[in-house]
Amino acid sequence: MSERVVLAYSGGLDTSVAIGWIAEETGAEVVAVAVDLGQGGEDMDTIRQRALECGAVEAVVADARDEFAERYCLPALQANALYMDRYPLVSALSRPLIVKHLAEAAKYHGATTVSHGCTGKGNDQVRFEVGIGALAPDLKVIAPVRDYAWTREKAIAWAEDRNLPIDVSKKSPYSVDQNVWGRAVETGFLEDIWNAPIEDVYSYTQDPAEPRDPDELVITFDKGVPVAIDGETVTALQAVQELNRRAGAQGVGRLDIVEDRLVGIKSREVYEAPGAIALITAHQELENVTLERDLARFKRQVEQRWAELVYDGLWFSPLKYALDSFIDNTQRHVTGEIRMVLHGGRAVVTGRRSDESLYDFALATYDEGDTFDQSLAKGFVQLWGLPSKIAAKRDLGK
Amino acid sequence: MSERVVLAYSGGLDTSVAIGWIAEETGAEVVAVAVDLGQGGEDMDTIRQRALECGAVEAVVADARDEFAERYCLPALQANALYMDRYPLVSALSRPLIVKHLAEAAKYHGATTVSHGCTGKGNDQVRFEVGIGALAPDLKVIAPVRDYAWTREKAIAWAEDRNLPIDVSKKSPYSVDQNVWGRAVETGFLEDIWNAPIEDVYSYTQDPAEPRDPDELVITFDKGVPVAIDGETVTALQAVQELNRRAGAQGVGRLDIVEDRLVGIKSREVYEAPGAIALITAHQELENVTLERDLARFKRQVEQRWAELVYDGLWFSPLKYALDSFIDNTQRHVTGEIRMVLHGGRAVVTGRRSDESLYDFALATYDEGDTFDQSLAKGFVQLWGLPSKIAAKRDLGK
Amino acid sequence: MSERVVLAYSGGLDTSVAIGWIAEETGAEVVAVAVDLGQGGEDMDTIRQRALECGAVEAVVADARDEFAERYCLPALQANALYMDRYPLVSALSRPLIVKHLAEAAKYHGATTVSHGCTGKGNDQVRFEVGIGALAPDLKVIAPVRDYAWTREKAIAWAEDRNLPIDVSKKSPYSVDQNVWGRAVETGFLEDIWNAPIEDVYSYTQDPAEPRDPDELVITFDKGVPVAIDGETVTALQAVQELNRRAGAQGVGRLDIVEDRLVGIKSREVYEAPGAIALITAHQELENVTLERDLARFKRQVEQRWAELVYDGLWFSPLKYALDSFIDNTQRHVTGEIRMVLHGGRAVVTGRRSDESLYDFALATYDEGDTFDQSLAKGFVQLWGLPSKIAAKRDLGK
Amino acid sequence: MSERVVLAYSGGLDTSVAIGWIAEETGAEVVAVAVDLGQGGEDMDTIRQRALECGAVEAVVADARDEFAERYCLPALQANALYMDRYPLVSALSRPLIVKHLAEAAKYHGATTVSHGCTGKGNDQVRFEVGIGALAPDLKVIAPVRDYAWTREKAIAWAEDRNLPIDVSKKSPYSVDQNVWGRAVETGFLEDIWNAPIEDVYSYTQDPAEPRDPDELVITFDKGVPVAIDGETVTALQAVQELNRRAGAQGVGRLDIVEDRLVGIKSREVYEAPGAIALITAHQELENVTLERDLARFKRQVEQRWAELVYDGLWFSPLKYALDSFIDNTQRHVTGEIRMVLHGGRAVVTGRRSDESLYDFALATYDEGDTFDQSLAKGFVQLWGLPSKIAAKRDLGK
Repeated sequence: MSERVVLAYSGGLDTSVAIGWIAEETGAEVVAVAVDLGQGGEDMDTIRQRALECGAVEAVVADARDEFAERYCLPALQANALYMDRYPLVSALSRPLIVKHLAEAAKYHGATTVSHGCTGKGNDQVRFEVGIGALAPDLKVIAPVRDYAWTREKAIAWAEDRNLPIDVSKKSPYSVDQNVWGRAVETGFLEDIWNAPIEDVYSYTQDPAEPRDPDELVITFDKGVPVAIDGETVTALQAVQELNRRAGAQGVGRLDIVEDRLVGIKSREVYEAPGAIALITAHQELENVTLERDLARFKRQVEQRWAELVYDGLWFSPLKYALDSFIDNTQRHVTGEIRMVLHGGRAVVTGRRSDESLYDFALATYDEGDTFDQSLAKGFVQLWGLPSKIAAKRDLGK
Repeated sequence: MSERVVLAYSGGLDTSVAIGWIAEETGAEVVAVAVDLGQGGEDMDTIRQRALECGAVEAVVADARDEFAERYCLPALQANALYMDRYPLVSALSRPLIVKHLAEAAKYHGATTVSHGCTGKGNDQVRFEVGIGALAPDLKVIAPVRDYAWTREKAIAWAEDRNLPIDVSKKSPYSVDQNVWGRAVETGFLEDIWNAPIEDVYSYTQDPAEPRDPDELVITFDKGVPVAIDGETVTALQAVQELNRRAGAQGVGRLDIVEDRLVGIKSREVYEAPGAIALITAHQELENVTLERDLARFKRQVEQRWAELVYDGLWFSPLKYALDSFIDNTQRHVTGEIRMVLHGGRAVVTGRRSDESLYDFALATYDEGDTFDQSLAKGFVQLWGLPSKIAAKRDLGK
Repeated sequence: MSERVVLAYSGGLDTSVAIGWIAEETGAEVVAVAVDLGQGGEDMDTIRQRALECGAVEAVVADARDEFAERYCLPALQANALYMDRYPLVSALSRPLIVKHLAEAAKYHGATTVSHGCTGKGNDQVRFEVGIGALAPDLKVIAPVRDYAWTREKAIAWAEDRNLPIDVSKKSPYSVDQNVWGRAVETGFLEDIWNAPIEDVYSYTQDPAEPRDPDELVITFDKGVPVAIDGETVTALQAVQELNRRAGAQGVGRLDIVEDRLVGIKSREVYEAPGAIALITAHQELENVTLERDLARFKRQVEQRWAELVYDGLWFSPLKYALDSFIDNTQRHVTGEIRMVLHGGRAVVTGRRSDESLYDFALATYDEGDTFDQSLAKGFVQLWGLPSKIAAKRDLGK
Repeated sequence: MSERVVLAYSGGLDTSVAIGWIAEETGAEVVAVAVDLGQGGEDMDTIRQRALECGAVEAVVADARDEFAERYCLPALQANALYMDRYPLVSALSRPLIVKHLAEAAKYHGATTVSHGCTGKGNDQVRFEVGIGALAPDLKVIAPVRDYAWTREKAIAWAEDRNLPIDVSKKSPYSVDQNVWGRAVETGFLEDIWNAPIEDVYSYTQDPAEPRDPDELVITFDKGVPVAIDGETVTALQAVQELNRRAGAQGVGRLDIVEDRLVGIKSREVYEAPGAIALITAHQELENVTLERDLARFKRQVEQRWAELVYDGLWFSPLKYALDSFIDNTQRHVTGEIRMVLHGGRAVVTGRRSDESLYDFALATYDEGDTFDQSLAKGFVQLWGLPSKIAAKRDLGK
């Protein structure tokens, strides 16, 4: 039997061309694997068919939407994961799952090598290869675009030469990556960081500036998992999809930042993640109600590190696993309801309700029923400030 | 000469009553100190006059608006200080400056004691007393509302009894604290955390849901300091005031959270801080452009700790000073311009421009002129992932 | 039935006197609970008998030695817990377990109140009362020494007055607390921090300066738990006891530091913890061999916070529990053998051996058999340094 | 004029051979730069002469001993810098200073390229090249041993072929790097991590197990800088040298660890750093006396990050500079005297004395003169424990 290479296949120009190129260059058979992460766009069967037409010996489509929502988006939600306090890790979340399917396909199809279409200056190459190294350390990796310096022009020429069934005329001015957790747009005129994004850049969200009626909803969480919206039970996937639809319709979740890539450069990225942003906003506030203070303070550090690790391609890494244990432990009481208004690009929490609440009306109120013993405060204040007072006594004389 | 007590005077019921009460209770002369932090409302002279009419032997008004903006709001801006990722420390910033004026007044007027009107379940008592302990550790503190269990009812009775010039009928349903950095509202029906705030709660901001035209502006920063708006030079105070006006008009900066108080309870707080939120948003994005990655990552931890310390009353503390040194060092390159659109409750950065930019178009672009050497990537990726790969080899066999 | 108070009883003067004093003062019946944590000293039965003679209606001795070793010392070992990088939390570990037994006894004996003999300037009062608050929030607490300002003199007078069976002449010049994890000594001439400890202070350790032969041993860990010494299976308790004996004989584990107490003051503390220090040293090095780098780096922060929380009386707190989850996750591979030499006050690791080792001879060696691909290094180094290089290009011109 | 290459020259086989090899391979003139960091061994002039005999057009010796002590060792001391809590960064500290001299020499001699003799699997290549990138980003780098896969055998053959004045028979079984801050030993039989080091490995320290008299000394610090030993004023360099001598004579400062290299592998390292360890031990305890608690707690995190950055080759990086600012700020009160006993491999603090002390005898003592107001404790304890108590009330019912 020939050597086999499993290729992460998107249906686009680069990976379509890669099928034949890898076959020619290495003499191997190419197995194309396309993973459905809720990215929408072309029908997955069409994509599968194209792979075969481009020369794949096998073409597999994996419907990984529920798996992605449950095992990748939910942990990100529970980590309130926002890289640089903004970016909900859209692409960074999807790569490890694609890697998992590649590794499984490699095993199933007896491949010794996997391949991806990433360039050498982005984050995704790292996520692919570090992921493969962690899940299947014996597999080799080919990255034609990076290691053989493919350009769009070379790819088009190759495709036309071989008469591949790809419409090379449809060049988007942007580079786009999307899945159910969100959508990332870069390059083109956005590379000038003084340029504002234009409406044309967006697809998951409506213009927040357009007048429309607000949308109010109630999200029910059970141990950090959104389990119902407006009382209707939802799966994780449905929760994200429903919020994408409703928050997207209100223009929620647009982001535009200059971002620190792992490979050491800054890049300009535009994102839209209506469901992710709405869910994280709701989840954060439910944590405000249900997590104890010291835990909440430390969790912020864990969240930052978690987001950095996942951004940096270390989803399958010992530290990531240990942080997951920490986060799991924190979610046991994150149960309750959040009422939220979606409108004009804002996702605003307006109410919270929880049997696990640590908000104690009797301790908090300034009205009748106050049970807080104010006589305790003086001693607390004195000893709380004692270290800085002792330091001040030393320092003021100087 | 009699003993003297310096009282932090707001002009309201509690501290007006406190003047006479302290005098009677302790036999001391009361010096009232009112500090103008840009809170607006009553004329400061009226307040001063009222203090005298209530029995103060001296009444002082300190115009601390510029000092507050420059030495308290600016450091908070440079720290992107948001307690619990949300609250820009409105009241927490003002207390240390009031304390500073109290301590100076105590020295000037020969007082041995200072006094404040805080209750025993809030954060401000801590900020006052820990601040006094750090600036003037030999001063005693009297807190009548807390230590003598004053209630509103007792205060009204006392005021009516002595015929004090206070309109006790004007009871706000909320407890409000405000200064130029923002406005805090609590109590009343907001103590039920399922209740949404109503429009009536707000004063610094217009309803974001009302249709209006967007407002675009350019903020110029020099070493982390906003020095011009739309090309017009501004002082720190003017920058905050102008942004309060323009961002407030667009409904920017409303916040509604359940918050962890230092005294160990959770409380529900509504804030509006249009200028603070707009400035911090702009400043964060300019940092994204001008701060190196590792620095930016660590600075987030410093920011969180800085905000916690200031929230917790430790403005004048050795750790706060050392974090200030860290932050000062980071601001040397935070110079440039941020273009921002204010609209519908959103403050959205749409462009950034800086001579200190670390964004390098030639390294970032995927178009012509790309100078990034992609051949370096493979080695980087391999060694970056080596530790998790070695761990995976160990762990997968099990 | 009368009210009942459960008293943490040590057999010493303060708590012996407290039995009668609480009874007289409150009219309650006193149940004395003594907990054996391996502190040695008096026979526990003698202590129990003394409690009854002092007026307790019940006196209970709990043999908690194994529980202490397994559920308190082991987690501290796995956290490499050293407060201020030095102190292995001897007393801080024991208080939560005593609290647990008090709470259980209170439930069993129908008590509404618990009592302890701590003063108001130490850490242990916090550990007791915060622990009670977390395990049995409805119990009241009486702290006679603190709240009623007992002094040693008053206690002696009371004891002599009532003819209590306590030898009040045996005053140690120090205040001592000890258990199987170590021994803490304070007060007396040690309060002058320029004074060196004298040999008389120590009890668990021999003088390290005395010439003697070294002692070599091998400790076997299984998932972070010491399970054998020199090939002999041991329980957790036996591991600590054996190491106390052997490391103590070599003068290992003496500590002398100025320490930051939770109540805001600095105090001078002398500790000896031969077993704890030897075990932590071995465990740290086994982690060096078996933990992945990023995990090890983050774990240090977790360890520091864990030690602070436990020192600060927050054993039973949500953050502590979540950190435990993190640490548990890290221990799954901490399996292997550490060879160690104990001698002259030093516990020195001289060899490590593990099936879970991440040390890869083939990657590490500079001799034959080297499998490390040095050609990867250049790319790694270039991209690793790229952010600081870009920053340098900006900054050097200025 | 020909191209010029500045080579970091040690006098050893690899860099001696590199002189001629670079010249032949590139046609450039080679300028050899040897930096005296107090490493002892061969006379620097002999080394300089050898460079010329091996074909260098210029050979420069820089006496950087004081610069190294003052600007590299002192910051490490003030950071209590111990990578992995153990290793005082001996080699990691020296590389940036060597880089600085290389960059200066390159400028002075008009070189366009620098060169070093590091392999591709160690940390030092990173420190060299990242340092060069930060100080002189336009310089090219040649790393013959790494990039051209030099082996010892090839180097010997080359040297013999050209009759270079190098004694190739003197092969040490170890790879050694040393400077005044310490000495690092690796490879050889130490690569089997079960093997114990033998006495032969050490050079800076005597066997701690040998009986000898203890050595007591007093170190005086001024703002974190050791300025006198036993009352004799010393420079930074003298302080390290004196402590190397005296602590080394007592066997202090031997270390043996499995360490996480930046390139992703674990290696086994043996160090001896008598002066560094003695100074850091003294400095830590003086900080215990003079730093406020919260500051001390946060500084530990800063110290860890500082040590990681320096270990990882990022001495000249924005985050390192900002951490320096933090640390500088903390040292203003680290003034006083530490008495220390050096003996049997131990450096033990036995006394501390400081005008900047925050240890307050009156607050700490349990004897007469106690000024601590114990009545404050109850309120403190109650509010300190309130969050975990509220959480417990929620959780215990379940």
